[in-house]
Amino acid sequence: MARIAFQGVAGAYSEQAIHAYDPKAEAVPLPSFESVFDAVIRGRADLATVPIENSLHGSVHPNYDLLGEYELTILGELKLRITHHLLALPGVALNDLQRVRSHPQALGQCRKYLKQHLPHVETVADYDTAGAARYIAEHELNTEAAIASAAAASVYGLESLDAGIETHADNFTRFLILGPGGMQPPRTTGAMKTSLVFSGKENVPGLLFKALAVFALRDIDLLKIESRPQPQSPFEYVFYLDIAGGVGEPNVDRALGHLAEIAGVFRVLGSYPVGDFV
Amino acid sequence: MARIAFQGVAGAYSEQAIHAYDPKAEAVPLPSFESVFDAVIRGRADLATVPIENSLHGSVHPNYDLLGEYELTILGELKLRITHHLLALPGVALNDLQRVRSHPQALGQCRKYLKQHLPHVETVADYDTAGAARYIAEHELNTEAAIASAAAASVYGLESLDAGIETHADNFTRFLILGPGGMQPPRTTGAMKTSLVFSGKENVPGLLFKALAVFALRDIDLLKIESRPQPQSPFEYVFYLDIAGGVGEPNVDRALGHLAEIAGVFRVLGSYPVGDFV
Repeated sequence: MARIAFQGVAGAYSEQAIHAYDPKAEAVPLPSFESVFDAVIRGRADLATVPIENSLHGSVHPNYDLLGEYELTILGELKLRITHHLLALPGVALNDLQRVRSHPQALGQCRKYLKQHLPHVETVADYDTAGAARYIAEHELNTEAAIASAAAASVYGLESLDAGIETHADNFTRFLILGPGGMQPPRTTGAMKTSLVFSGKENVPGLLFKALAVFALRDIDLLKIESRPQPQSPFEYVFYLDIAGGVGEPNVDRALGHLAEIAGVFRVLGSYPVGDFV
Repeated sequence: MARIAFQGVAGAYSEQAIHAYDPKAEAVPLPSFESVFDAVIRGRADLATVPIENSLHGSVHPNYDLLGEYELTILGELKLRITHHLLALPGVALNDLQRVRSHPQALGQCRKYLKQHLPHVETVADYDTAGAARYIAEHELNTEAAIASAAAASVYGLESLDAGIETHADNFTRFLILGPGGMQPPRTTGAMKTSLVFSGKENVPGLLFKALAVFALRDIDLLKIESRPQPQSPFEYVFYLDIAGGVGEPNVDRALGHLAEIAGVFRVLGSYPVGDFV
């Protein structure tokens, strides 16, 4: 039984992602994204699952930085439909609420609902959605609600005052499955994608254009680009790309070789099956 | 005297940026980035100042989304050196601390200091740095400290237990000065830059490559790229670019015309002097 680490507490969306990926896995809760990456490096977990992108709010940038820092391998991805619930202690009504707490991204995703139905409540930023639910249960707060998953309600004995309170129904979070460096994803006959990170050799003008040319000139689709700062060089960047196709396909291998010629730092983060919507 | 809106409370780094931009301006504190954009649209403020990027933590993504939503014009930028202080009530010592509160980005910027000097304190995420300082002062919390500016210490009667606690000395936040749509920045003889936003006409492969080619083939440097999600189309993106050069320079104008041909949505967000480090 694989031990898969995630950031948060029981009832987190990441835990839901783990069970969608492997129903038999043991989900290992940890306090931070860094500790999740670290657990795989140190062998305290076999794999890890982290959110990398939400379809409304964009990338989870700290996890891009950690992908660059830690030498783990991306083994897979999945796109989880996020359905937020407004959770409170049994007996608490909408009118009783003075505060709503959750992760800032979840608060943002439910901004319109909160404006319309709870215009006078204070919103409180917490580190995670399920953690907010747990906090309310532990402190028996009957003037507060959490925005979290249905799973969090059952774990912490809360009731759902309202379901599907997110502004956009098309609310998906894409999760990555990470394993130790060098590990291979399970073989598949489906479409593959490849993630990589690179930076310039020096501050060469046109580096990004040249890097994209490497793929465009071989008809390889760019699926995503993310730029992240280089802390030691203010206002210079490293780039994370997702491209269509897998390592081992001749044109992908040639393109990666070509990119290695022009990049300074360059690393393939993983080549893995395109994930399903779950 | 210009009224310049900012997100936060007195003592915020944004207020410092306003006074660096215009020492005579009246800084108008507002509760959210959205309300800051809104204040300029409704004429409740003449201009606005928002952080757009930190050299360590990257872009302030909600402000990219608001640049896309609101039709304001970027009139200028400046790069403010951020020096974080650990602020507590007078008489409080490092050993007394059980919690440190601040904006999550400021907490992140001081992670190494906290790990080394305060390994057992709990970190609490607040909406802003100066707000965390105010909270401690108002509630007379003598087991808590805030990470905030020196200005916040004097505004709220706190003392600095330690200064420059950020991990990297090269810690700059880039702020934008925003005015009503169509407003022109002050004329200057110095270097200019231009910010723009675009998305594809449909899901054309190679759109980003073509867009970068528009500039690269005219020897126009790309300074920054940011991709943001399109909420109505999961895992499709709009792109924000900063390029070297100003509107009115023939090759820039031609490149922008060329980009308009291939993009779906396309808008120049502003053409303004390259900002100084202050």
